[in-house]
Amino acid sequence: MSQGNSWGECPIPISDYPNILLAHGGGGKLMQQLIDKIFLPAFDNPTLQTRHDGALLNLSNSRLAFTTDSYVVKPLFFPGGDIGTLAINGTVNDLAMCGARPAYISAGFILEEGLPIDTLWKIAQSMRRAADEAEVNIVTGDTKVVERGKGDGIYINTAGIGLVEHDQIIMPANIKSGDSIILSGDLGRHGIAVMAAREGLAFESAIESDCAPLTEPIMSLLKAKVTIHCLRDLTRGGLAAALVEIAQTAKWQLLIDESSIAVSEPVRGACEILGFDPLHVVNEGRFIAFISPDYAKQAMEILRRFPNCREAAIIGEVTNQPDAEVILKSKLGVKLVLDLPAGEQLPRIC
Amino acid sequence: MSQGNSWGECPIPISDYPNILLAHGGGGKLMQQLIDKIFLPAFDNPTLQTRHDGALLNLSNSRLAFTTDSYVVKPLFFPGGDIGTLAINGTVNDLAMCGARPAYISAGFILEEGLPIDTLWKIAQSMRRAADEAEVNIVTGDTKVVERGKGDGIYINTAGIGLVEHDQIIMPANIKSGDSIILSGDLGRHGIAVMAAREGLAFESAIESDCAPLTEPIMSLLKAKVTIHCLRDLTRGGLAAALVEIAQTAKWQLLIDESSIAVSEPVRGACEILGFDPLHVVNEGRFIAFISPDYAKQAMEILRRFPNCREAAIIGEVTNQPDAEVILKSKLGVKLVLDLPAGEQLPRIC
Repeated sequence: MSQGNSWGECPIPISDYPNILLAHGGGGKLMQQLIDKIFLPAFDNPTLQTRHDGALLNLSNSRLAFTTDSYVVKPLFFPGGDIGTLAINGTVNDLAMCGARPAYISAGFILEEGLPIDTLWKIAQSMRRAADEAEVNIVTGDTKVVERGKGDGIYINTAGIGLVEHDQIIMPANIKSGDSIILSGDLGRHGIAVMAAREGLAFESAIESDCAPLTEPIMSLLKAKVTIHCLRDLTRGGLAAALVEIAQTAKWQLLIDESSIAVSEPVRGACEILGFDPLHVVNEGRFIAFISPDYAKQAMEILRRFPNCREAAIIGEVTNQPDAEVILKSKLGVKLVLDLPAGEQLPRIC
Repeated sequence: MSQGNSWGECPIPISDYPNILLAHGGGGKLMQQLIDKIFLPAFDNPTLQTRHDGALLNLSNSRLAFTTDSYVVKPLFFPGGDIGTLAINGTVNDLAMCGARPAYISAGFILEEGLPIDTLWKIAQSMRRAADEAEVNIVTGDTKVVERGKGDGIYINTAGIGLVEHDQIIMPANIKSGDSIILSGDLGRHGIAVMAAREGLAFESAIESDCAPLTEPIMSLLKAKVTIHCLRDLTRGGLAAALVEIAQTAKWQLLIDESSIAVSEPVRGACEILGFDPLHVVNEGRFIAFISPDYAKQAMEILRRFPNCREAAIIGEVTNQPDAEVILKSKLGVKLVLDLPAGEQLPRIC
């Protein structure tokens, strides 16, 4: 709760109902109060005000991206963000990775009986702020309440609609032999920040989540007509899982140079202490781009203009081998085959 | 589990992992197995096969409806459906209530550690069948796993995109003095069916949920160019909550004739025993339509052609009083003001 002072004051008098009751999910007066006092003011826009079963949208074009993610992060608040910022940026970034400009977001809340209303208010405010920053509107939503012990405070699902305003085909199956692989920044901040908050660990330097919208760097690449074959943000499973999944879908071998991958000193130290591999740790503001080699230099120049892409680097290439695998060349020159772990080191990280 | 034999066999060998582990949500091999063996075969369509962060869609027009709902029903299986059928039909119906033809669905799963994989398989099969019946495709999805005791088996969120193929404005604010109010069928089946399954009650006649897609009756009204001012499906809070919300949004008085509202004998009996009011019980296949009075007779003729609208009836009208309230004329002729309850009689019903 390090951001305790920046939310303003919850507009539902604490003396009425300080905590979520089952009745807040029942379709009656308390649910109406939640919508009127918490969600409508926080997400305010004309579409929401119609109080309809869904949002009616008039789009400027008819090529769309559509995505969804649920967010179950624990704890709800962590250095650099909270479940609300995550719920907006995670879905915004999935749309951006489709080469789409994120536009509309839906929000589904599953609340546990007993959640402080004040916590819900803070999270709704964070969502609004993240939505403003990412230039999206939260246009439709839903709230359910489950009994104490059947949830963990709050789970959020967001779905998103983005507009595809170009003719490129951006997807894993479209990578090509010779493509340069660009990594947009350093690895591991989100996973380590959440883990430290969860376990009450303090590192010498504070590590903040990298959680941020990635729309602008991607839109800038597209505007400059850089040929992009695939984009992927590095969430669960980290860089390793993203590379392996793309290699397996596209059936090409990827060759990655470990020495070109940025990991900050504090994250490296935390990973060593905790026994984590930075290549597998989750990120929430990092992506890889598969770029036609003729455009790689231009792409790097564009990306480095953005604060959260200043450490962008070419970390490898698609080889001419039709092997669905990822080869990591270590700093000592040893070549290893990267594999997916069975699960993940850390559950409930996003 | 009354439908125990109709799902076929779960394709993940029970001997491997009979139950969901935290690792199934970790972005690694087990999660890939879940996607490859359960979700992709069940929801099979070309868009899903791209294995992208989101679905890329080419629409035939640019006027859309967008909606979301989470489903937390308990128990997961009940007479007439399960959480999977509910998760499709509930979202399909919200789109239909916007006057849109449902087209694309996203599915977000929050699984509790320990959920039998076989249960997940059955639910995925039900979703596929419901999607086929409603003529929608499940085009994108997400899976998260939470620890034992932090969920209740499975929660599902679906979001939906529907295509608006007409020029009518259908929303609560658009109802007009003199509109006929049509109720599409009898009340209370879903709530009573779920409650009976939850509490292990047996009534003389089996009561099945009314859970069903409402697309076809609505599309038929639109095709016939019936002037529709508002549509609303009768979910949480039942008929009473839907009427009160619309009256409050539109700021018109609604006059309802109790004797024209159909409630089946078994549901009426169950409500009496349990102390429920059928007007407040949740439904999953019923709606009200506010129809320009010139079109009311035609609308009734069209609706009654559909099996689940055979008991459609005009139950009241929008008066010429600008009072945001609902007046119920009882069978004895007494006039009562209908109000929202604080919560709902039954949590976790949808």
